[in-house]
Amino acid sequence: MNKKGILTVISGFSGAGKGTIVKGLMKRYQNYALSISATTRNPRAGETHGVEYFFKTKEEFMDMIEQDQLIEYAEYVENFYGTPKAYVDSQLESGKDVILEIEIQGALKVKEKFPDTLLLFVTPPSMQELKQRLVGRGTEDSKTIDCRLKRAVLEAEGIDQYDYLIINDDLEECIVRTHNIIQSEHCRVSRNNCNIEQIKEELKKF
Amino acid sequence: MNKKGILTVISGFSGAGKGTIVKGLMKRYQNYALSISATTRNPRAGETHGVEYFFKTKEEFMDMIEQDQLIEYAEYVENFYGTPKAYVDSQLESGKDVILEIEIQGALKVKEKFPDTLLLFVTPPSMQELKQRLVGRGTEDSKTIDCRLKRAVLEAEGIDQYDYLIINDDLEECIVRTHNIIQSEHCRVSRNNCNIEQIKEELKKF
Repeated sequence: MNKKGILTVISGFSGAGKGTIVKGLMKRYQNYALSISATTRNPRAGETHGVEYFFKTKEEFMDMIEQDQLIEYAEYVENFYGTPKAYVDSQLESGKDVILEIEIQGALKVKEKFPDTLLLFVTPPSMQELKQRLVGRGTEDSKTIDCRLKRAVLEAEGIDQYDYLIINDDLEECIVRTHNIIQSEHCRVSRNNCNIEQIKEELKKF
Repeated sequence: MNKKGILTVISGFSGAGKGTIVKGLMKRYQNYALSISATTRNPRAGETHGVEYFFKTKEEFMDMIEQDQLIEYAEYVENFYGTPKAYVDSQLESGKDVILEIEIQGALKVKEKFPDTLLLFVTPPSMQELKQRLVGRGTEDSKTIDCRLKRAVLEAEGIDQYDYLIINDDLEECIVRTHNIIQSEHCRVSRNNCNIEQIKEELKKF
């Protein structure tokens, strides 16, 4: 089994429960590290540099882009958000599977740059259920809900490019299933080229 | 998650413990069916038609080949052995994951004919350990052991064409790991095309 961690991107429809699954993985298992984003926005009360975010000035962030220190980045409401490569690499090298919770466009960019990335897509058991969850939150008006559902139509077109589809029917089962998927990937032949070469070499000695 | 079973082929070096893993899977979990081979050899004492083997005359076996009723077959010590397609299909349709324990040449033929087949390769943690296991059995002379190790060299060249490498370091862990690998495969995007199409269709209705 390969010892290096696996960079795992978790995406999914808004309301699919991916945040809860990620929290569950972190709480229940020891082998995960959550990727910490860099951002140019100001820290909010209680936020600590290196815990919730790496807080950067705009100049620092531009330098990071220029020096190819970010796995991916995006601008959102006049602030930049990105995934620092150094932190992810050090966690992967130490054997931790690094979880990155980003939307579909970012996920596909990461996979293109790092083909070993594992892409997981989380969905509720049915689209009727998705709509009910968004309505049930009670925090969004119908215009926002419609907007999210329209976005879901676009996002659904990208699912085929993911590796696994995770149907969030029962949260507890779903956390275990997600964990098993990531751990099973460690046994993929394509992630064990070194082990297989070693087997071939050792056998030739007999 | 797709409901149909997955045809799972388990191969591995002689002495890797694949038979024990298969027995463990069958004993511990309800969702597996073991493929039953057809053979032209005579039943031994205590063997029942439809349990250990489907016993066939040579004419019947030749008919099965001709009518493409076998997934794969091979001749061994003047008898024929093969995997009847009908039994495997009915088990897969009922949702059982069907386990087929065959050697590497047969495995690759099955994968070629049925690309959805999941190929697992079992190996001991090291080749030194493999040699010790073969010697430790105490039932084979050194010529037979040498012969098996030479065969292992050839078999190792085929591992790259398998899907997963299962390192049998601890039997109990190995059974659970194998189970998790097979169950995780049910969530593969490539095995869920129907589910994904349904998601897209449902979303378009909103």
